[in-house]
This record gives sequence, C-alpha cells and structure tokens, in this order.
Amino acid sequence: MREMNIAVIGATGLVGQTFMRLLESRNFPVKNFYPFASEKSAGKKLEFNNEEYTVLCEKNIEEQEYDIAFFSAGGQIAKDLAERFVNQGAIVIDNSSAFRMDENVPLVIPEINEMRIDEHNGIIANPNCSTIQMLMVLAPLRLLSPIKRVVVSTYQSVSGSGLKAMEELKSQMREFVDGEKVSDPVVYPYHILNNSLPHIDRFLENGYTFEEMKMIQETYKIMEEDIPLTVTCVRVPVLCCHSEAINVEFENEVSLEEIRTAFKEFPGVELMDNPENLIYPLQGDLEGTDQVHVGRIRMDYSADNAVNLWCSTDNIQKGAALNGIQIAEYILNN
Amino acid sequence: MREMNIAVIGATGLVGQTFMRLLESRNFPVKNFYPFASEKSAGKKLEFNNEEYTVLCEKNIEEQEYDIAFFSAGGQIAKDLAERFVNQGAIVIDNSSAFRMDENVPLVIPEINEMRIDEHNGIIANPNCSTIQMLMVLAPLRLLSPIKRVVVSTYQSVSGSGLKAMEELKSQMREFVDGEKVSDPVVYPYHILNNSLPHIDRFLENGYTFEEMKMIQETYKIMEEDIPLTVTCVRVPVLCCHSEAINVEFENEVSLEEIRTAFKEFPGVELMDNPENLIYPLQGDLEGTDQVHVGRIRMDYSADNAVNLWCSTDNIQKGAALNGIQIAEYILNN
Repeated sequence: MREMNIAVIGATGLVGQTFMRLLESRNFPVKNFYPFASEKSAGKKLEFNNEEYTVLCEKNIEEQEYDIAFFSAGGQIAKDLAERFVNQGAIVIDNSSAFRMDENVPLVIPEINEMRIDEHNGIIANPNCSTIQMLMVLAPLRLLSPIKRVVVSTYQSVSGSGLKAMEELKSQMREFVDGEKVSDPVVYPYHILNNSLPHIDRFLENGYTFEEMKMIQETYKIMEEDIPLTVTCVRVPVLCCHSEAINVEFENEVSLEEIRTAFKEFPGVELMDNPENLIYPLQGDLEGTDQVHVGRIRMDYSADNAVNLWCSTDNIQKGAALNGIQIAEYILNN
Repeated sequence: MREMNIAVIGATGLVGQTFMRLLESRNFPVKNFYPFASEKSAGKKLEFNNEEYTVLCEKNIEEQEYDIAFFSAGGQIAKDLAERFVNQGAIVIDNSSAFRMDENVPLVIPEINEMRIDEHNGIIANPNCSTIQMLMVLAPLRLLSPIKRVVVSTYQSVSGSGLKAMEELKSQMREFVDGEKVSDPVVYPYHILNNSLPHIDRFLENGYTFEEMKMIQETYKIMEEDIPLTVTCVRVPVLCCHSEAINVEFENEVSLEEIRTAFKEFPGVELMDNPENLIYPLQGDLEGTDQVHVGRIRMDYSADNAVNLWCSTDNIQKGAALNGIQIAEYILNN
C-alpha cells in the first residue's frame, strides 16, 4: 500500500492530538510524520506510533515534502501557512473556518459529498463540528423527502473550545465545590459553570453568532441546496460531545418507521431510539465514539410532515478529526 | 388590611421554602402560619417572619382553618390532601400537575389570565415552570400578531427536580474533580454531570415526555387557543434557572423593534438584548430574580415573519413560587 508523508499542524492541541490518535488506531499508512505547533511548543517531544517526534514550527515547513497536512490551528494560521504546505506537495485538510466558504475549496463530509474531494486545488475544508453532526442527520432524511425547513438548538460542550476551556470548566467546578470564589473566566466571557451561554464565536450584525451562520451557510454548500434553516447555538457546562435538538419539516409525508430505517442504513449514523427503555443519545456516554447518535424521534403535531429528534456526537471525532481522517482515507484510496 | 391564615404544604422543600421567603419579602399579610410536610419532617422547626414554627403533618389538617394553602408537595399529595384543606376554608394554590388540566380548575399566570382566578372552585393550579417562562414571552408577542407556530428547546436546571437533585449534581462534581468514580445517580436515570438529558418526567406513548406535553397542553388552556407548538425538554448540568430557545412564526409581519417594545411594556418581562455588549440572559446570573429575561432576538430567515429568541428565568421563583404568590396577592386584593 502507498505510504504518505503526514504533517499535523496544531499537533499539541485537542484536535491535533485526536488526528494523531486516529491515524494510529485506523492504521493509516504513514511514511514520515511531522508534528507542527507554535514556536513556543517547538522542540517538545510527542509520541506517535510508539516513536518520539520533535515538534516543528513554521520555519521548518520548507525542510521536507508532504502528502497530507492536517490543520487544526485556527483560521489565521491556516490562512498564513496552508499555501506553504501546498507548495511542499501537501493536500491541506483544514479544520478551521478559513477556507470553508471559498468556492475553490471543497467542503466535505465524506458520507455526504466525498465526490467533491476530487475537485480540490490543494486545500479541502472540514466543516464546523455542529454542521457535520446536523447534516449527518439531515442527509439520510433528505433521501426520504425534500426538506422544507429545519429549526435547530445546540447543546455544545466546552471541548469545542479546546483544552483550555476544558481546564476552565474543571477549575470552576473545583472552586465551586470547595466553596471558594469562582475565578474570573478567561476562555468564555462568563462562567460556564452552572450556566448556558447562548454565545459561540463572535456576534454578527444580523444578531446571529458566527457559529450559527456557519451552520446555515455550510449547509447550503455541502447539501448544494439552500435548505431553509435556522439555528441557536448554546454552550453548556459539559466537557465533551455536542447534542442538538432538531426539528425538521418535510415537503412530503414521511413515517417514523421510514426515518428509523433511513438512519439505520446511513453510514456513520447510529440509531439510539428506545425511550421506554431509557435509550437515547447522551453526551456523557459518547466520548471517543465515531458515529452520530440519533434518537427521541417523534412526530411534531405543530406542522404537517414534521418530526423532532435529538442527536449527540463526539465533536472532536466525527465533528473534527475523524471527518478529516476520512477525507484523507478517500484520497489514499482514489 | 385583611390578614390571611396561610398554610404551606411541602414547607421543607425547595419551592415550599421559596413560598415562605417570598411571603416574607413581599410583606404578605399573614395572620397565622402553618407549615406542613411529611410525617417524617413533622415536629421540625422552621423560621418564618422571625418566629419559629413547628412542622405539621397530614393528621393536623383539620385542627385549624385557612385562607390560602400553597401546595408544593407533588401531584399525589395534592390529589390526596387538597380537598381537606378546601374543606377547612382554604383556596388551594397547587404547584403540581395534579389539577392543571381539570376543567374546574383555573390554570393561571397572573400577567396573562388573572381573570380566570375568580372562577375557581377551591383549587387554582400553578402552571409548569417551563410553560410559565415560555408563555410570559409568547403572550406579549401574540399582542403583535396571531402566532402561527412555535418550536422550543429547553435548557432546564436541576433545581426543577428539587434539593436532592441539586445535591446530586454537586456531589457528582465533587467526585469528578477529586478523581473518584462518580457514584450511581439516584434522582436522574443517568449522570447529570457532563451530560444533557433529553428526558424530563416520564415518557408517553407518542414519544414525548410528560414535561413536553405539559408545555403544549397547558399553553392551549392558558392562552385559550391551540397555538401550534412543539417542544424538546432537556435537563442540563446547571444548578438554578431555566433557559429556552424559542422560535416563533407569526401570521403577520412583525419588526424586531415592535417585539422589543412589546417585551419592555409587558409586566414581569425584562429585555436583555444587546449582544454586541455581551448582554443576553444567563441562568448563572438570575437566581432570586422575579422576571423572565429575554434576549438574542433576531429574524429567522428560514420562514416568513419568524424570529428566534432566548429567555432565562429563575424556575423556582416566577416558574413556581412567585407565580403562586402572585395568585394569592390577586385573591387578597379582589
């Protein structure tokens, strides 16, 4: 089998580490491995496939050639460095929002639009975590009927903001249970402990957050259809995994049985829908899993042909690193 | 001013205690005060208006007469005991779901339908906490245009399940930050720590929870209109206060300015809607407040004449005890 030279940019971060763990566990054929991070982290040691690697930084980019560069270092670094990796032969798979809406960059969820990967010009964008989770649910549903309208509320964990946010929640818990004054927050504008923040990413002029608009605009691009969709994004004091309450109106009549069958048949989706036996997706149980889990499927009597459902996913796996690895696996195999 | 003989049933619980605190802080004219609880708690001492009272139990009901009996002791106890208090002269204001859908029992949010109080036959029902919060938002909106459809997702705190649930969340936090195995849950079917449970109250045959159906059916009764409405109720690991993401479709065109004005003018609602300055309702800030706080008001482009908004309320105050006290104040003054 062909072996690839792999770079991970942001290798010390939560998504970067998950890229590395998934490359290992999925036996991705890695020839040479190059972990990159900020100058501050350069020289640190990271283990990958039982070997020790020295963290590289920006000035090392031109020292070797790459087949694939996984970026999870934020939008600005992606904008600054992606082209330099492309010039060294890499196909860049970027987890930030920097290139997602660029018409020259495919935005890909492999189960939905892997054929768009072939159209890349050196860069392929990984969608937003909440978009991936939602569209993994909407894609099988659209096979049953055109979708008329979707209303979504998210319950997003702090892992979406990285390791520092997870530490912030944990240290707020610690101070709270110890009866101390909870320190001022650093990652979030308000305490995330005992709070739900209806504020993810920056506010835009139309009153939406950028996170909310990402979910809408990325949907149009990936689904290649302007599905009427509205979103409220909320951060909840949960360490890992995101949940979403999704309301879908269909153009045509669709039965719950057809919906359940569609989910069972769609790759990457796992049906967990047996409420009488207390089976429904739970963030607390899904860390490290690959699938988008869906349950609480029920008719919505407030509109014709409408349903409610609930889904949960590990936002760092299918919502980020796993989706990127799947894109790389497609490249490897095609 | 007329003084009243007041009983609180469930006086040792979270809502019962809040009834007592609000009777004090609002200077409700109490002649004699009778705290009731289970036989187990009988004989305990409780402080009210700087005097000590002995907790009474079921066998003491017929020993005195009452003007108002505030019930916050669950549905079964309300069904078992309400009539006996009525027979002793009380108007029962019950916070459980026992009588809410009984056509002989008014279901009242004073700001919306206080005139229904006069129709009581001894019992008046307090709506579900999530219903009160939602309708305090929908009532001013309905003054602007008929409402076509509403889609709601809730972010409900553990205080809605009482003191034991609050202790359960706190002890799970303690075990988690101490690196211990988190004990099996007692109040909830799963850990509430680092989780969002799409499961409040029991499941019904149609796939909804009773909590979700309460919100729908109580809306029809209070608003005296079958507003098309669908709900997903979710428990989040937050100690106090509930939030709701509400999507409203209107029959007619309504501007954001009209909506903000309607909220400003409606008693009991507080507008907190200035996202550029990070002003939006937050559960973490609202414990002990009276108002339903509303913000993140923005047009929803997925449907004609639709808006999204976010609201937060102390579920034990306006969502429970305060609403009951307001009903009693109406009775006092009429």
